[in-house]
Amino acid sequence: MDVSSIDTPAIVIDLDRVEANIAAAQRYCDAHGLALRPHVKTHKLPILAHRQLAAGAVGITAQKIGEAATMVAAGIDDVLLSYPIVGETKLEPLSRLARVTTRLSVALDNAVAIDLVARAAAAAGRTIGVLIEFESGRRRTGVESFDDALALARRIDAAPHLRLDGFMTYPLGEGAGEWVREARARFAREGFEAPTFSGGGTPDMWRAHETPGLTELRPGTYVYHDRATVGAGAGTLDDCALYVHVTVVSTPAPERAVIDAGSKTLTSDCIPEAFGSGYGYVVEHPEAEITSLSEEHGVLDISRCERPPAIGDRLRIVPNHVCPVSNLDDRVIAQRGGRIEAVWPVWARGMTR
Amino acid sequence: MDVSSIDTPAIVIDLDRVEANIAAAQRYCDAHGLALRPHVKTHKLPILAHRQLAAGAVGITAQKIGEAATMVAAGIDDVLLSYPIVGETKLEPLSRLARVTTRLSVALDNAVAIDLVARAAAAAGRTIGVLIEFESGRRRTGVESFDDALALARRIDAAPHLRLDGFMTYPLGEGAGEWVREARARFAREGFEAPTFSGGGTPDMWRAHETPGLTELRPGTYVYHDRATVGAGAGTLDDCALYVHVTVVSTPAPERAVIDAGSKTLTSDCIPEAFGSGYGYVVEHPEAEITSLSEEHGVLDISRCERPPAIGDRLRIVPNHVCPVSNLDDRVIAQRGGRIEAVWPVWARGMTR
Repeated sequence: MDVSSIDTPAIVIDLDRVEANIAAAQRYCDAHGLALRPHVKTHKLPILAHRQLAAGAVGITAQKIGEAATMVAAGIDDVLLSYPIVGETKLEPLSRLARVTTRLSVALDNAVAIDLVARAAAAAGRTIGVLIEFESGRRRTGVESFDDALALARRIDAAPHLRLDGFMTYPLGEGAGEWVREARARFAREGFEAPTFSGGGTPDMWRAHETPGLTELRPGTYVYHDRATVGAGAGTLDDCALYVHVTVVSTPAPERAVIDAGSKTLTSDCIPEAFGSGYGYVVEHPEAEITSLSEEHGVLDISRCERPPAIGDRLRIVPNHVCPVSNLDDRVIAQRGGRIEAVWPVWARGMTR
Repeated sequence: MDVSSIDTPAIVIDLDRVEANIAAAQRYCDAHGLALRPHVKTHKLPILAHRQLAAGAVGITAQKIGEAATMVAAGIDDVLLSYPIVGETKLEPLSRLARVTTRLSVALDNAVAIDLVARAAAAAGRTIGVLIEFESGRRRTGVESFDDALALARRIDAAPHLRLDGFMTYPLGEGAGEWVREARARFAREGFEAPTFSGGGTPDMWRAHETPGLTELRPGTYVYHDRATVGAGAGTLDDCALYVHVTVVSTPAPERAVIDAGSKTLTSDCIPEAFGSGYGYVVEHPEAEITSLSEEHGVLDISRCERPPAIGDRLRIVPNHVCPVSNLDDRVIAQRGGRIEAVWPVWARGMTR
């Protein structure tokens, strides 16, 4: 079946490019002695996680317990939860996850999370590894002082079922290497080892080897790329492996066309102005701009198009940010050379818990 | 089971408020002789569509065929598709939908859509009603001239299985009533009746009766309300019936807290500055601002909080725009007085086709 015959809007991935992206990241990590632990939040597909592992990844990264549990249910058994797990409602799910993984680790930045993870590990009778998340410029989660990190290390050390693994940050900001070097020195004075230093994500991934002491890389977006990672210089448009296939449903004015994909397909995520304008890159009409979205409408300014799109035309869009796009549809069409090779359910879609 | 025991992030609706909102809209429409045809895109729940119909709604509005088909599968049989259906891939699904509905109508703004709908109606052996969508200020879909509208009317009239019903627009912009009056006059000269004039949505709904000639209202958001409809004056915070329940997972700096809901739960949708700042209203800390979102992180500026939230605290968020939030989770928790009354699968979630 030809990919042009599928109903729109549809999320279509190019398997040749996906495989090339997986191989390139693995080659880079191998060349620089970095463990690759891809974040599955981008594709949410167990089959691609398995392909990443087959290429040489040491395990996967997931954000929420449900996302990890989906991957584990699909046969993956080495998971890092890179998100602070907090709340009594997480105790039982985390404990269950610990029971069915060969190796489970978590990243966190506070004592409340440590205590919860410790209880889950004890309940499961398993050891859970812990990375201490530190602030490196993003200003969301992550400890901001060595003292805070040390206090957490002591608490982890005191918990029988926890193992202090090291440090985690996102992204790999300036000075992250120096921070870890100093933290490791202070930890050593108290007898704590912290061998792992895990950094992410795709925008800076090809410079990761410049961060001293880094041991592990957790990129996600590289598997598909998008306008944001292309804008950041981490890939090219030719590396982009996920396209949203859409249909032009209306051209009510000479300067305007409307496509059947709005924020329910492309999301409202924007990118820095320097990376491009609008809500996506229109492959067939690069001079068109997706100027506004409603839930099901994408409005294109086609005033600069020499041959403007017509009603019924099928177009392909490279999204601004591909990860939340993967989260919106229940299926992904996998094509190679324009022929559909598979239709995959996005099993880890919607796993916010 | 108490609602505070559910895992977060969770979408929780208040049934008392939902019922009050449904009743208020129906009272308004009844008082002004308007047919109410609620848009189900807000709740995506057949049970609430049935409650809207039981309260007096004439039928429902849906945006895409899949959304409509879900509602029809749940026993609803009068549907307006308020979106131009274009593309060969839509022919068979639309034809199937026509076969299983008692009354199906579509809104459209171009001849390509008319021809497709005509073929689907013929294939089903059913009549499909057609509303001509016209531009009233939103600048997305909708014909912009009377001549264009007339050309479509002739084409509809010529199709044996189509029935010209009238006009549709969104929102109810200034001058919409005058536009329809003039269009009806021109149509009458050619012998075309156009009895229906359908307008939406929630922000202007309580002024709909001021639009001369309006016969039908299609609001969606009123069932839940959100920061945008409150900002527009269509409701109050006390009318808001959907809250996102979240947990504080980190307070890495005195001025910052992080909640376990990001753009995968709250969406990146913004609202006009005059309506409020940030990505949602924090009920327990109105002085806090959700300043940025990643997919699973919501970053709160808590510098103005006298008693700042602590790790583990559960908070409730009124979203900026509730419709895409409904589209993100597979379930909704329905509570009354803090007790869980039902957990409903969001069957029409993700129906972009």
